[in-house]
Amino acid sequence: MTFQRVAIIGLGLQGGSIGLAVQAYLPDVVTTGYDRDAITRTRAAERRLVHKVCDTAAEAVADCDLVIFCVPLGAMGIAAEQVRAALPADALVSDVGSSKQVVAKALGEALPDHVIIPAHPVAGTENSGADAGFAELFRNRWCIVTPPPQTNLVKLSQLVAFWEALGANVEIMDADHHDLVLAVTSHLPHLIAYTIVGTASDLEEVTQSEVIKYSAGGFRDFTRIAASDPTMWRDVFLSNRQAVLTMLQRFTEDLTALQRAIRIGDGETLFNHFARTRATRRSIIEEGQDDARPDFGRADHRADHRTDPKPADS
Amino acid sequence: MTFQRVAIIGLGLQGGSIGLAVQAYLPDVVTTGYDRDAITRTRAAERRLVHKVCDTAAEAVADCDLVIFCVPLGAMGIAAEQVRAALPADALVSDVGSSKQVVAKALGEALPDHVIIPAHPVAGTENSGADAGFAELFRNRWCIVTPPPQTNLVKLSQLVAFWEALGANVEIMDADHHDLVLAVTSHLPHLIAYTIVGTASDLEEVTQSEVIKYSAGGFRDFTRIAASDPTMWRDVFLSNRQAVLTMLQRFTEDLTALQRAIRIGDGETLFNHFARTRATRRSIIEEGQDDARPDFGRADHRADHRTDPKPADS
Ligand SMILES: NC(=O)c1ccc[n+]([C@@H]2O[C@H](COP(=O)([O-])OP(=O)(O)OC[C@H]3O[C@@H](n4cnc5c(N)ncnc54)[C@H](OP(=O)(O)O)[C@@H]3O)[C@@H](O)[C@H]2O)c1
Ligand SMILES: NC(=O)c1ccc[n+]([C@@H]2O[C@H](COP(=O)([O-])OP(=O)(O)OC[C@H]3O[C@@H](n4cnc5c(N)ncnc54)[C@H](OP(=O)(O)O)[C@@H]3O)[C@@H](O)[C@H]2O)c1
Repeated sequence: MTFQRVAIIGLGLQGGSIGLAVQAYLPDVVTTGYDRDAITRTRAAERRLVHKVCDTAAEAVADCDLVIFCVPLGAMGIAAEQVRAALPADALVSDVGSSKQVVAKALGEALPDHVIIPAHPVAGTENSGADAGFAELFRNRWCIVTPPPQTNLVKLSQLVAFWEALGANVEIMDADHHDLVLAVTSHLPHLIAYTIVGTASDLEEVTQSEVIKYSAGGFRDFTRIAASDPTMWRDVFLSNRQAVLTMLQRFTEDLTALQRAIRIGDGETLFNHFARTRATRRSIIEEGQDDARPDFGRADHRADHRTDPKPADS
Repeated sequence: MTFQRVAIIGLGLQGGSIGLAVQAYLPDVVTTGYDRDAITRTRAAERRLVHKVCDTAAEAVADCDLVIFCVPLGAMGIAAEQVRAALPADALVSDVGSSKQVVAKALGEALPDHVIIPAHPVAGTENSGADAGFAELFRNRWCIVTPPPQTNLVKLSQLVAFWEALGANVEIMDADHHDLVLAVTSHLPHLIAYTIVGTASDLEEVTQSEVIKYSAGGFRDFTRIAASDPTMWRDVFLSNRQAVLTMLQRFTEDLTALQRAIRIGDGETLFNHFARTRATRRSIIEEGQDDARPDFGRADHRADHRTDPKPADS
């Protein structure tokens, strides 16, 4: 590892997890951090997310050789401008943003004289903020690095080594391909989950209390990702608009075909479609990208999980 | 508890779980069982899912005072006909089918002289078959009982007590309202999950291996329910067609509205929608219907979960 001092801008789920992971797996590296929210800074200091929480972004980056922007996509440009004057000339600039073409552009405009290599750890939970981070977040997860065409190969290999040290498996990809892949594996699933949870909230025939009570039939799986941070996800859809709309178009076509099969009572089409999708789950589990236990290993209906198994309103 | 002998027809996830739960929580009740699949019967006997696995449905119900049909929705009528001659006149007939109007009709036609009170435990996993059941499946879950208008109230209260003894909370509802509620909390989520997993399998621009690798960004949540049994789910959509199509229509309208917001860059509409859906998750957790831990408590990226954190193909 050749980075000695890593600055983290934004101390929420991603920034906090990086800070904790560096301390756990790269104990010789010094970490500094900054967040625009004073309450987040205080909490970050209490949780020791980084060695030193600074009061300004300039102070946080003053001596660093790597700065990682861990702010919402819409804030990347501003956050980068705030460090321009203080950032050492040879510091590598990176980020963790969920869409990559837009971020590359924003960072490039704000820091035209620095080497910039964007990255995206495909790892997260539905939680955000200074309390959400944990050191193991990136373990057994992929981190996609999207270097521009002519990049500094030494710094690229340092960045790859950095993420590998945090437990991630690194893949290198063009930013535009990244945005297409993530549109289907992450952005479209979130859009659909947000939609159905909204639909279920607006029904007249079925009460909200019924939706919640009987959510174990499948609905609850969607509510987890539909509880993700609204700012982050607004920014994702605004910044990866084209790829998301493309994938949404395909999804709608497929949904229309299944709708038709239901309407005309075509059981064979339904069965064949449903039989095909099992293999995907199997592969995901084989590749270590999900928990193989039934129900993701949830413990909520196990006898020992709650002292009183009765819901509050019964 | 006034049932002494319970017969279970179909020894998969539901039938097996009922058998194990009765033995765990109602140790005085004798259970018999039958499944049309000989391999399932053998495995059921090995796992002791019921006290006695019988070679015919007639033998299984011969002395029972409660028979519960735990077969796919499309097989309810046939399974009921197979016991008609052998079923004691005063035995209560019930089932666990996921849609209720169609089942009430099928059981009523096959067993016109018996008291029939359908039920639906809103509890399941993505697994099926003789190995899938476990005694705690129904704990802290709702079981919806859908008695016909003029029912035998003594038998109704016995059935309620039976499900409560297995750890469930019982709700009584009309069959048609049940079918509407479940269309939104279970059937529509499954349809959408099956659709998106199919969509992701058919892309030319993004490989299947990429979809699997980066599934932790949200997609993997959908693959779990899209790995559910194809026969069961074909039957659900064929048997609850009208309610599913109604709910699907609402969903499509809402998705179109969000699609438009993305297309025109209306961040405010997106943010407001995304902020609204968080409350639903909170209620589900407060009412004990999901695991509150981040990521459903998945352990797949924890350091101690896998000995080798590297995916196989890296
Ligand atoms: N969550 C995920 O699952 C996930 C996964 C992969 C990548 N990402 C990406 O990671 C980035 C951060 O996400 P997160 O989940 O860590 O969000 P988060 O928990 O909300 O943390 C972001 C933090 O950045 C702060 N911030 C905003 N503007 C800033 C600025 N100009 N300077 C310094 N701090 C600023 C925010 O403060 P305020 O609260 O005051 O705005 C907040 O504390 C996003 O770009 C997202 O796309 C997220
Ligand atoms: N899975 C869930 O999450 C869930 C939740 C609530 C309710 N339900 C309902 O529960 C019922 C059973 O579902 P499950 O998940 O337990 O399915 P399962 O694990 O596939 O078990 C069903 C069993 O019934 C057998 N069977 C089929 N026709 C039969 C007949 N005429 N006589 C005797 N056995 C027969 C099947 O054998 P073959 O394999 O040879 O067909 C299979 O072994 C369905 O009506 C479903 O709607 C399911």
